[in-house]
Amino acid sequence: MQSGPAPLAVSLGDPAGVGPELIAEAWVRREAESLPPFFVAGGADLLASAGRTRGLALPVAQIFHPFEALDCFGRALPVLAGADGDYTPGLPDRDGARLALASLEEATRLAVEGGADGLVTGPIHKARLAEVGFTHPGQTEFVAEACDVHEGDAVMMLAGPQLRTVPLTVHIALAQVPAALSEALIERKGRIVAMALMRDFGIAAPRIAVAALNPHAGEEGRMGDEEARLIVPAIERLQAEGIAISGPFAADGLFAPRSREGFDVALCMYHDQALIPLKALDFDQGVNVTLGLPIIRTSPDHGTAFGIAGTGQADAGAMIAAIRMAGECAERRFGN
Amino acid sequence: MQSGPAPLAVSLGDPAGVGPELIAEAWVRREAESLPPFFVAGGADLLASAGRTRGLALPVAQIFHPFEALDCFGRALPVLAGADGDYTPGLPDRDGARLALASLEEATRLAVEGGADGLVTGPIHKARLAEVGFTHPGQTEFVAEACDVHEGDAVMMLAGPQLRTVPLTVHIALAQVPAALSEALIERKGRIVAMALMRDFGIAAPRIAVAALNPHAGEEGRMGDEEARLIVPAIERLQAEGIAISGPFAADGLFAPRSREGFDVALCMYHDQALIPLKALDFDQGVNVTLGLPIIRTSPDHGTAFGIAGTGQADAGAMIAAIRMAGECAERRFGN
Repeated sequence: MQSGPAPLAVSLGDPAGVGPELIAEAWVRREAESLPPFFVAGGADLLASAGRTRGLALPVAQIFHPFEALDCFGRALPVLAGADGDYTPGLPDRDGARLALASLEEATRLAVEGGADGLVTGPIHKARLAEVGFTHPGQTEFVAEACDVHEGDAVMMLAGPQLRTVPLTVHIALAQVPAALSEALIERKGRIVAMALMRDFGIAAPRIAVAALNPHAGEEGRMGDEEARLIVPAIERLQAEGIAISGPFAADGLFAPRSREGFDVALCMYHDQALIPLKALDFDQGVNVTLGLPIIRTSPDHGTAFGIAGTGQADAGAMIAAIRMAGECAERRFGN
Repeated sequence: MQSGPAPLAVSLGDPAGVGPELIAEAWVRREAESLPPFFVAGGADLLASAGRTRGLALPVAQIFHPFEALDCFGRALPVLAGADGDYTPGLPDRDGARLALASLEEATRLAVEGGADGLVTGPIHKARLAEVGFTHPGQTEFVAEACDVHEGDAVMMLAGPQLRTVPLTVHIALAQVPAALSEALIERKGRIVAMALMRDFGIAAPRIAVAALNPHAGEEGRMGDEEARLIVPAIERLQAEGIAISGPFAADGLFAPRSREGFDVALCMYHDQALIPLKALDFDQGVNVTLGLPIIRTSPDHGTAFGIAGTGQADAGAMIAAIRMAGECAERRFGN
């Protein structure tokens, strides 16, 4: 999408949440954590304030074009001139939501146009953003639309040091999950996952494990028939295409240590099936990656954490991991 | 139920599975692991054979009454005279299933009659047992009936070093879970759990966390209404009774390290919600405890593992933990 190396674009997230302070800390730890160059879309004053609140020595450099970030990243946190505002940790308001949205829009635009090699989004509060006119269910759907990708083809993957999981259905009631699953859905997302792990994660032949929907994988139909009816046919079709995919496996044992060694990613049937093991094992280091897009997009897998914003308690591990992963994926995809 | 200390009764499990070899290893490690005295219901020859296959020095002492186990436990594995048979690891057959059933029946009878202070059941294969006339969905339901307890009042708890969870619904298709939940179910099982943690686990005021059914706990009804309709009213009623119960909490974050520190047990809405985090975190040490019975009953939280039986690979951690936990619960309940 661009001819030379470009920095990553980072959006602020809600300014009353932990996003800005974690971005500030990521910059301070850039060398120890081997982070690639990045810039933040807007919020120079509030980032400086967040750094002070967290007790960090944080020089901020205002820039006017992404490429300037490559020069100044070593000595200051590059922040693109743009929206800014007051910073009151723990007290979200409409102005803050507007700022979060402006930052997301700008960072996304730059990633789509190639001014940034990838996009890292800070945590927003969906209900707050909806109040200021954000009509998407979440940032992933927003980014997919900005990329002209059908939202069903933007696949969320959660990645931590011990585990990668993909929820095939996401923000729907549990009662709606069985009806939302289909052979076509499993196949389409399975293909996107396989291709993304090859292209962006450097795994030559990704091993995909598929979780069952029902306990004990349905025990041969005694507890649900989705395994035989939907999951097995989809797996067989993907296997016929040469994808190293297997299952369905009883979900309870799938995330045990020995079992985890056998796959690179687990396709899960619903949100909590994918998120429970990830957060149990890799809580402070989980990254949310969007697969299937023409751009690289990652995000720390946690929310705004209004309750601890400004207290210094929030762990920067996931933000740092999200920035590092976006850089690694960009390097593999664009070869910078 | 009895006037003096009694040993624990252990059932063999399927003789072609890993049960007998893990019982043998538990006895060999009895001192290092501080295990209470136990005896096995039947299978003297096959236990000796399982010990040899696993390379263990295992003296076996045939006994004719449970109390004899207290005397000989220090020098030999006490085995109650009774059913016995050939032992072919990995090759289950009907004779083996009959032996497993006879051992389960005998061990349960002794626990119910007070000849044993508690019951530890070895892993069986449900489909194999069904072939020889076992009509219960699992050992838990069998034990409940033997105790004259309605099976809905026999509550399964999974306990590992890092986590305790209770699935409120168990072996049903995921699609049936929402309809199977009710205020009454949550209340009844919540009470049983609270009482059992006080009486058998020595926790004066157990802190119970309740998991939500829907992702993000339904996000105020946007993704399912079971939280507001069923879970919250049940929690409020139990709180009014003085039980330290809280929730519903979004299930994905509930099992993260910091969150786990906040509760003694998590009530979960379905099988995999309870079992995924337990097995991800505590795989080789999970114990299945049945709460709400007049007897103590535990079991290692794994299956027959026919595939590795006889190879020495099976980890005895869960069997040892199940025996130790049964002993500790019996001591608290019966004061031996």
